[in-house]
Amino acid sequence: MNDRIKCEKYLSKVMSADEAAKLIYPNATIGMSGFTPAGHAKAVPLAIARRAEATGEKLNLTVMTGASVGDEIDGALTRSGAMKRRTPYQTNSTVRNAINAGEIDYFDVHLSQVAVWAKNGFFGDIDFAIVEIIGIDEEGHLIPSTSIGAANTYIECAKHVILEVNTTQPESLRGIHDVYTVERVPNSKPIPIIHADDRVGTDYYPCDFDKIAAIVYSDIPDKGRSVQPVDEISQKIADNIIELITKETEAGRLPVPLPPLQSGVGGVANAVLAGLKKSNFTDLKVYSEVLQDAVFDLIEAGKISFASGTSLTISPDFEEHYKANFESYRDKIMLRPQEISNHPEVIRRLGIIAMNTAIETDIYGNVNSSHINGTRIMNGIGGSGDFAQNAGLSIFMTPSTAKNGTLSCIVPFITHVDHTEHDIHFLVTEYGYADLRATTPKERARKIIDTCAHPDFRPMLHDYLDRACAQCAHKHTPQLLGEVFQGK
Amino acid sequence: MNDRIKCEKYLSKVMSADEAAKLIYPNATIGMSGFTPAGHAKAVPLAIARRAEATGEKLNLTVMTGASVGDEIDGALTRSGAMKRRTPYQTNSTVRNAINAGEIDYFDVHLSQVAVWAKNGFFGDIDFAIVEIIGIDEEGHLIPSTSIGAANTYIECAKHVILEVNTTQPESLRGIHDVYTVERVPNSKPIPIIHADDRVGTDYYPCDFDKIAAIVYSDIPDKGRSVQPVDEISQKIADNIIELITKETEAGRLPVPLPPLQSGVGGVANAVLAGLKKSNFTDLKVYSEVLQDAVFDLIEAGKISFASGTSLTISPDFEEHYKANFESYRDKIMLRPQEISNHPEVIRRLGIIAMNTAIETDIYGNVNSSHINGTRIMNGIGGSGDFAQNAGLSIFMTPSTAKNGTLSCIVPFITHVDHTEHDIHFLVTEYGYADLRATTPKERARKIIDTCAHPDFRPMLHDYLDRACAQCAHKHTPQLLGEVFQGK
Ligand SMILES: CC(C)(COP(=O)(O)OP(=O)(O)OC[C@H]1O[C@@H](n2cnc3c(N)ncnc32)[C@H](O)[C@@H]1OP(=O)(O)O)[C@@H](O)C(=O)NCCC(=O)NCCS
Ligand SMILES: CC(C)(COP(=O)(O)OP(=O)(O)OC[C@H]1O[C@@H](n2cnc3c(N)ncnc32)[C@H](O)[C@@H]1OP(=O)(O)O)[C@@H](O)C(=O)NCCC(=O)NCCS
Repeated sequence: MNDRIKCEKYLSKVMSADEAAKLIYPNATIGMSGFTPAGHAKAVPLAIARRAEATGEKLNLTVMTGASVGDEIDGALTRSGAMKRRTPYQTNSTVRNAINAGEIDYFDVHLSQVAVWAKNGFFGDIDFAIVEIIGIDEEGHLIPSTSIGAANTYIECAKHVILEVNTTQPESLRGIHDVYTVERVPNSKPIPIIHADDRVGTDYYPCDFDKIAAIVYSDIPDKGRSVQPVDEISQKIADNIIELITKETEAGRLPVPLPPLQSGVGGVANAVLAGLKKSNFTDLKVYSEVLQDAVFDLIEAGKISFASGTSLTISPDFEEHYKANFESYRDKIMLRPQEISNHPEVIRRLGIIAMNTAIETDIYGNVNSSHINGTRIMNGIGGSGDFAQNAGLSIFMTPSTAKNGTLSCIVPFITHVDHTEHDIHFLVTEYGYADLRATTPKERARKIIDTCAHPDFRPMLHDYLDRACAQCAHKHTPQLLGEVFQGK
Repeated sequence: MNDRIKCEKYLSKVMSADEAAKLIYPNATIGMSGFTPAGHAKAVPLAIARRAEATGEKLNLTVMTGASVGDEIDGALTRSGAMKRRTPYQTNSTVRNAINAGEIDYFDVHLSQVAVWAKNGFFGDIDFAIVEIIGIDEEGHLIPSTSIGAANTYIECAKHVILEVNTTQPESLRGIHDVYTVERVPNSKPIPIIHADDRVGTDYYPCDFDKIAAIVYSDIPDKGRSVQPVDEISQKIADNIIELITKETEAGRLPVPLPPLQSGVGGVANAVLAGLKKSNFTDLKVYSEVLQDAVFDLIEAGKISFASGTSLTISPDFEEHYKANFESYRDKIMLRPQEISNHPEVIRRLGIIAMNTAIETDIYGNVNSSHINGTRIMNGIGGSGDFAQNAGLSIFMTPSTAKNGTLSCIVPFITHVDHTEHDIHFLVTEYGYADLRATTPKERARKIIDTCAHPDFRPMLHDYLDRACAQCAHKHTPQLLGEVFQGK
């Protein structure tokens, strides 16, 4: 297995995961690699969990990642009681339940800000970085794995670095990474990315040899999630998005070829890409967080000419095909640190078309994407704010109803606000899309109700708006606050 | 007066304000110069109002500006009924009352986005630009006045340009402007500003001669507002801000010299600058929107080495001194388009210390800066979102109470959200400051109540939080939504 460590002197640092786990001291803050279950540290977190379970110590760890990670971190460290604090984004139900039960302290940070905050000390000291890599080359360069996320920042800022050399990841990944970091104020410079495919950094993580506390071999693979078949609602949302994008190009408000696309993971994102495959658009670019199956499908179809992300997740069904064809994708993909994939400067410059998902929205165009009923956290905002605040076109989408049609996802007043009316250009449901740009609150309300709300809920929403307009002394944003949360 | 127009061929376009006003057709969208009562168009808007009053026509105009403007626009065009729509920011009570009465349609846009939206056609066609200048030089260059705001963008995008040559502004202003615009996607390039004082554009507005429909002489001066003496509460807020900034530098989280400062207009901003004058900080920079008296005072004191803004407002009391000393300020100040003064790219790169004012905040750190009781709009968000979302240090401040101490400005749930918990680092009142970075919602709530809330309201807020924590099934962001708007 040693052929993954090609620089002799690094071999002296090799130890078992259990030995490495012993280096972790109580109350430590640990920055881990991993972004949307890809490239996350696995062997050492599992070993930390084993240690905590075996000894019963209160480790009281603060765990930072890129974004969501696998059960090896969020599941194991929650169950073992080793983790006390968590940031910036999670999707694992074990940790989510612990957060909502008040057992784990969670805080939500824009993904682009993680690097800035870390470098400026806003998180306090970062004691350890635990980072998955695919190998170390002759020069001692650390080769990133299937995600970068905030790993480069954690390596830069941590006192001690623990590396997991994952031998299940193919060495052929070498070369798809572009590691670039923005220097701290007052030394920050413009990020020289002008096109989605601009290469501006190194294809390895710079790291001071003396900071490396342990190197561990790991043979635990990423577990890609299966892609769900696109349901009817997602398909309609995707169709509406493609229609509105097409209309924007026809009106000259969007250039052709389109600016790069950003979207979350999941059904609608896949359906949008599938729709674009059938469309007349060509020379598509992606500048997003996660590259998933559909992106590679469109590369093969000649539709996507370049895709930049910070993580690469392949579903089990697609894996064989993906591996067989990797060499044909290699020069059309790039993984960057999340500081760069989500950077306002680059997002605004490229004029990204951003597509993000809401839990609920209100009739005035504010968006809740993190808290069910205002109190139960789902995942956090992730990068949605980075993109929504800076996109050339900021689209939010949601099914018009939740809980089998019993709840409207469009309400008079949302229970938690993550994105304000100022950062949303289009709202899309399966019923249609509302162009919210340059509209007054009341104009927005009528558009949203008439085109996006489920027809069953339109009378109720119109009734609210009409009564608010009639009864409220102030007519700019009429509200009947006394009734918006009745029964909640 | 012709010596202000030094290029012969422009003289053929000179006409009276009343003649120019006749060019305006009904339903037109007009982009006007002006930012925080400075450099706004005056003679032509007054003439438009006279025309509307004389003829009784329904002009139905959409009026866009940089930010707030003088009564010559917002007052006169409201009273005359000529204006139907207004964006992006206003502070004039006549227009505010008309908006809240439902007579004028207003919509709120981040100030940095005005240029982007205009260039991409999000506002629809812009029919006219009406822009105050101080003169036209031998080459036909248009020399900006006391503000730039969005005037350069309106000149670029409008079908017809009307210029007001204001002869009350001294020609010595020439040279303090730096007009730079970001090209539309896909041609946007990095903005080459690395330091607050970098000059990157021209000192005049580029403008196609054939687009100029009229040139009008104006002798209506800017009316600077008097600076109110700093009251005790503002002084304490300012003291707290200076204390927290000092502590941040001591902890190594802020560099010295400090990153450039941004602040709104008014008492606290002045008190902060007065406090900095007495502090040990030197080589201070400003990268903000409005340069007001206190900035010049600190330039004279050798404390501020450079100040960049988009407008320059001098109070009547300070005017004589300012004029007598202008030559000593000239190389230490610069006015930029608001697209640049408020650009996320530059704000993040420079690591700006942003100080903005809230109407109310909630215990979890969300901020309302636009709507009283969720329905009555005050001014709009202005540039507060541009700065808060991207600042190196994002500070919001508010007195702890309003309405003579009868209302707490810190509440369980705010009635309108303009800035979310993700974009606020410090909350400051006269009682203290709360560091909200890297904290969970409950931690934030306790800090805010214990350090920022007025002591009279702390028991009520603690009681809410305690009951929410006890009764709410989900412990991450506990709320008792059923009671938050009771009686509203
Ligand atoms: C918003 C988000 C949670 C939606 O994810 P999703 O998988 O499409 O969500 P679902 O439709 O399955 O809904 C999730 C839960 O919320 C519930 N829900 C959705 N809308 C609801 C509403 N209006 N009221 C009450 N509950 C609602 C669902 O019933 C489901 O509940 P369950 O867990 O009890 O089954 C997710 O996209 C997210 O976390 N976004 C924020 C971060 C982000 O945008 N990342 C991508 C770019 S960076
Ligand atoms: C927030 C903002 C309105 C505060 O301005 P200000 O002049 O300091 O405000 P005041 O303290 O005078 O309060 C304004 C009004 O709100 C009322 N008010 C303030 N807090 C209140 C509260 N918590 N509840 C109810 N009313 C409140 C005041 O009583 C006053 O009412 P009045 O008009 O009936 O007298 C102003 O800073 C703003 O518009 N900010 C947004 C834009 C911005 O930040 N611009 C600068 C940087 S770009």
